[in-house]
Amino acid sequence: MSKGNINVSVENIFPLIKKFLYSDHEIFLRELISNGTDATTKLKHLISIGEAKTELGDAKIEISIDKDAKTLTIKDQGIGMTADEVEKYINQIAFSGAEEFLDKYKDDKNETGVIGHFGLGFYSAFMVADKVEIITKSFKDEPAAHWTCDGSPEYTLVAHDKSDRGTEIILHIAEDSTEFLEEGKIRGLLTKYNRFNQVPIKFGTKKINDPEHEPATITDKDGKETKEPHRQIEVDDIINNTNPAWTKKPADLEKEDYDNFYRELYPMQFEESLFHIHLNVDYPFNLTGILFFPKLTQNLDMQKDKIQLYQNQVFVTDNVEGIVPDFLQMLKGVIDSPDIPLNVSRSYLQADGAVKKISGYITKKVADKLASLFKKDREDFEKKWNDIKVIIEYGMLSEDKFFDKAKKFALYPTVDDTYFTFDELVEKTKDTQTDKDGNHVILYAANKDAQHSYIQAAKDKGYQVLILDSPIVSHLMQKLETSGDGKIKFSRVDADHIDNLIKKDDNVISKLSDEEKEKLKPVIEGAVNNSSYTVQLEAMDSNASPFMITVPEFMRRMKEMQATGGGGMFGMGNMPDMYNLVVNTNSPLVSEILAADEEKQKGLISQAFDLAKLSQNLLHGEELTNFIKRSYELIK
Amino acid sequence: MSKGNINVSVENIFPLIKKFLYSDHEIFLRELISNGTDATTKLKHLISIGEAKTELGDAKIEISIDKDAKTLTIKDQGIGMTADEVEKYINQIAFSGAEEFLDKYKDDKNETGVIGHFGLGFYSAFMVADKVEIITKSFKDEPAAHWTCDGSPEYTLVAHDKSDRGTEIILHIAEDSTEFLEEGKIRGLLTKYNRFNQVPIKFGTKKINDPEHEPATITDKDGKETKEPHRQIEVDDIINNTNPAWTKKPADLEKEDYDNFYRELYPMQFEESLFHIHLNVDYPFNLTGILFFPKLTQNLDMQKDKIQLYQNQVFVTDNVEGIVPDFLQMLKGVIDSPDIPLNVSRSYLQADGAVKKISGYITKKVADKLASLFKKDREDFEKKWNDIKVIIEYGMLSEDKFFDKAKKFALYPTVDDTYFTFDELVEKTKDTQTDKDGNHVILYAANKDAQHSYIQAAKDKGYQVLILDSPIVSHLMQKLETSGDGKIKFSRVDADHIDNLIKKDDNVISKLSDEEKEKLKPVIEGAVNNSSYTVQLEAMDSNASPFMITVPEFMRRMKEMQATGGGGMFGMGNMPDMYNLVVNTNSPLVSEILAADEEKQKGLISQAFDLAKLSQNLLHGEELTNFIKRSYELIK
Repeated sequence: MSKGNINVSVENIFPLIKKFLYSDHEIFLRELISNGTDATTKLKHLISIGEAKTELGDAKIEISIDKDAKTLTIKDQGIGMTADEVEKYINQIAFSGAEEFLDKYKDDKNETGVIGHFGLGFYSAFMVADKVEIITKSFKDEPAAHWTCDGSPEYTLVAHDKSDRGTEIILHIAEDSTEFLEEGKIRGLLTKYNRFNQVPIKFGTKKINDPEHEPATITDKDGKETKEPHRQIEVDDIINNTNPAWTKKPADLEKEDYDNFYRELYPMQFEESLFHIHLNVDYPFNLTGILFFPKLTQNLDMQKDKIQLYQNQVFVTDNVEGIVPDFLQMLKGVIDSPDIPLNVSRSYLQADGAVKKISGYITKKVADKLASLFKKDREDFEKKWNDIKVIIEYGMLSEDKFFDKAKKFALYPTVDDTYFTFDELVEKTKDTQTDKDGNHVILYAANKDAQHSYIQAAKDKGYQVLILDSPIVSHLMQKLETSGDGKIKFSRVDADHIDNLIKKDDNVISKLSDEEKEKLKPVIEGAVNNSSYTVQLEAMDSNASPFMITVPEFMRRMKEMQATGGGGMFGMGNMPDMYNLVVNTNSPLVSEILAADEEKQKGLISQAFDLAKLSQNLLHGEELTNFIKRSYELIK
Repeated sequence: MSKGNINVSVENIFPLIKKFLYSDHEIFLRELISNGTDATTKLKHLISIGEAKTELGDAKIEISIDKDAKTLTIKDQGIGMTADEVEKYINQIAFSGAEEFLDKYKDDKNETGVIGHFGLGFYSAFMVADKVEIITKSFKDEPAAHWTCDGSPEYTLVAHDKSDRGTEIILHIAEDSTEFLEEGKIRGLLTKYNRFNQVPIKFGTKKINDPEHEPATITDKDGKETKEPHRQIEVDDIINNTNPAWTKKPADLEKEDYDNFYRELYPMQFEESLFHIHLNVDYPFNLTGILFFPKLTQNLDMQKDKIQLYQNQVFVTDNVEGIVPDFLQMLKGVIDSPDIPLNVSRSYLQADGAVKKISGYITKKVADKLASLFKKDREDFEKKWNDIKVIIEYGMLSEDKFFDKAKKFALYPTVDDTYFTFDELVEKTKDTQTDKDGNHVILYAANKDAQHSYIQAAKDKGYQVLILDSPIVSHLMQKLETSGDGKIKFSRVDADHIDNLIKKDDNVISKLSDEEKEKLKPVIEGAVNNSSYTVQLEAMDSNASPFMITVPEFMRRMKEMQATGGGGMFGMGNMPDMYNLVVNTNSPLVSEILAADEEKQKGLISQAFDLAKLSQNLLHGEELTNFIKRSYELIK
């Protein structure tokens, strides 16, 4: 039997690091800046507890490009390393200094804000550089060290005369990575990953008007006054905001601050957000952030701005699938948490207990915020409803806990712009809209214009008609119908003649006898001659339309549910549309049809049928062209 | 100065492997099966060149679960390892046996079909197991070895009495990974990654009817014949097809074989594919595969089956972004290449020269196949056009090389179902549809029904009207207009009155004098009273419609282009729709309007305007309800 230690072959690890350490090579800059940030944060901590006797000053991280030398340099003013520390932290791959530091100072973990967890970050430099130098001087009174490695496992370590504290990483950019010597590329990366970095990042200088110098007013010989030009000075170009809004306490922020942060996050977004939710929790996990409910816009590209995930103010991803509940992914904003495991698979994330809790916490915060907005200023909430309803309805369908909370503030607007909660709606309509069998019928329309005549008929009866037009609302109706006492039924206003939708006991007497009806039906069926239409004779008000087309609720809703994914019955999406042609036996025109000769019958039925089709937007193509021609004849 | 070697700290590498080696933990099974496949393929190669004196037999890989022992075992009958080889290949992380093997036999590289490139694959076992055993016997006459490691860097290696050739990996599944002890989970993974693996994979057994035994016919006392039941036997459950269609020569395959493979790939797909493209290239890169043009279906879920990317018959991903040109991502099928760098970022992929060539090659193959289908059986090609047009039109817009080839087979169907190529269309219409200024006007409609009356008017003039209804066709028109001699103009049939769309020299004389026109115009403008409509008096055929609504081409097309992404002019998408109301000064109704009193004028204009709106589907809501009421009155 033999025993031994698994050996990691360094010669083979290096090419692996280069190829596989991170799938995205550009990550190297984020990693090196995170190291510089940690070095600065650590020093700050040591100063604060008295272990380092030095001044932090306005410590910043400086990024510079030397195109001729083909180098990119990242220089910090942080804790620095002694030669011994270089040996320990750099020459031993995967020996994380950050973990050791956190172990040592674990009680103040939350305040240290150290980013790195594994010591591999530094080696990501070799993804883009074929030679890397480190020049570093510790805050301790020891000489600076100069480490060089060309990507082979061999390194050199010599003394250096660097006298200022901190670490300088010099990347000799490889031939296949020269893009990282372009200013535009680096500025892009800094903006993407580090625009809220904890430590200021300087990238070159910029000219600004000298704030110390007020341009004088010059009066020329004609007495005309002009201002002398501003005096320009050159200052460091700091690319980041080290104190973004989400790191502050909600109590310290005004609405304006949130608006400004929204614009800072999405400079191309011209609309303001509707409202924000400030997230702030430290148990059982750490999470801060601000979520915004955006105003829906026509321009879908704008809609694509996503929630951004940060870890200690460093950008990680804008794919928050699995962390933020599905229905909230239309929101915008920022989430920052050191506790979300990164670089792991989505399926792993979704199974992770902490992540599940985060998702649940966010859902709860959003529901609570919406409830409080509703309570505080209902009128304003109603104004915003159209922009937020899809998110809320989607949430009600997908998360039962959210459904329970949202039932209290989800709104049901009528065609007359009255906004009811569900309970108010039930209360308001229960006396008038309960039929003789005890069904409480909620009437709705999907489109005020397209269903205008049907809405009018319902309103004439004194009924409330909701306008429900979200794509997923049919699923929500289904849920509302089945989650109560089973008495509530939703019905679209054109699902049948209004007297049939809510049947009362008072029947209208038919002017036509049963024999006359028996005679009329086949005549109409013959003239209509279309198997999609079922002829249905009804005794209605004599002033109501002679012909009317209705779309039975059940089939239509099943088809809609299928079209918007899930629910309904299999294969129903492909069924043809079926209609009823309701003929008002009390209409004078219908009596006229019955009395007319065959030729006249045909003409009257076809014109009346076309008019009925028009009110359901069912008259198209040649039929419509012919109808228009006939109608021009009628007015000539 | 000091010099030294970078050291990789094993204690710290192990947790890294566990967390970061692959973002998806389930990959471990694919990796271990790939190792077993390589072991079998290597042995086969050594036998074929006489270096191994043994029989391959029906070597397979066996996967088994022991729920009580909490183990998952992967057992192959391949080349095996001696104790020395275990030392060399297993105990040295990142020392790849595959690379050494390929180096040694590099001339036959293409035939060996070895999958692994780096020696890390085996260690992925530690992502799900807290202890791993290897029991292995080399094909060489040496004793078997038994290696055990519990995830610490320490291992033990002892002799073992295993007598059959091959390697057995026993994974003691960790507490957090017990899902990998579920048969359903493992079967799912095998189906996902290995259903076309090169070496047969056995996962348990199944019962089948004994093919050797023909059930006898039994005659009972009444003379009734029955068959005795089939005799069942237990056989290995082989989960994979080791010779999928794409690995065969096109010459050896019939249409039926491709159809069967399509069904094998997409068992839930009920529609057959329209046609296939067999890819087969070995220079400058290796690539095989079969792409299918699917029949478009209503059910979008079905549409989501994607092109699958394999590497030596092992599934890698169904995200082929960057490898297959964008416009072909609606196709289905398989691409298999050992040359596509995996596990690298998308941006890296897109910059990779080999990958660019692959994308170009696929585009060319698809264009050539389409050209040959068009040439061989145009009638059939025309039948399929509606299913393939979006892909082809998108390709013409996004790849200039494809545009040049597709110009010869892209089709332009008319409303009467004649299919023209662009050249044929130009030839067919150039005499009749060139206006007096030399513009050659191509007329089209977006919807036969909605634009019926306008199509009819154009056809009455003897013009060809195309039906162009793809979402991106407005971009294609723009490209066709600008890529020729600048004389071709596309115009939708309702963009103006037909005599204005293609202006000829023969002007119709207006029945109304200029004074009458000057009197008429404000009357109509007053009655219409809507700033979206511009009143335009035209002398047209007296039988043509009195009123007609047209939608100017330029604005409409710009808006459509904006809506389908890109092109058009910024902000145009939000402009209101603008219409022209064309009044036919030669229509008797218009003369009647002019002669009528104010009250009657209003009535006539409003009814005629409503009828004109109807033919553009612009009459809705209360206006439509009122129109219908008025119209019922007219026929009563």
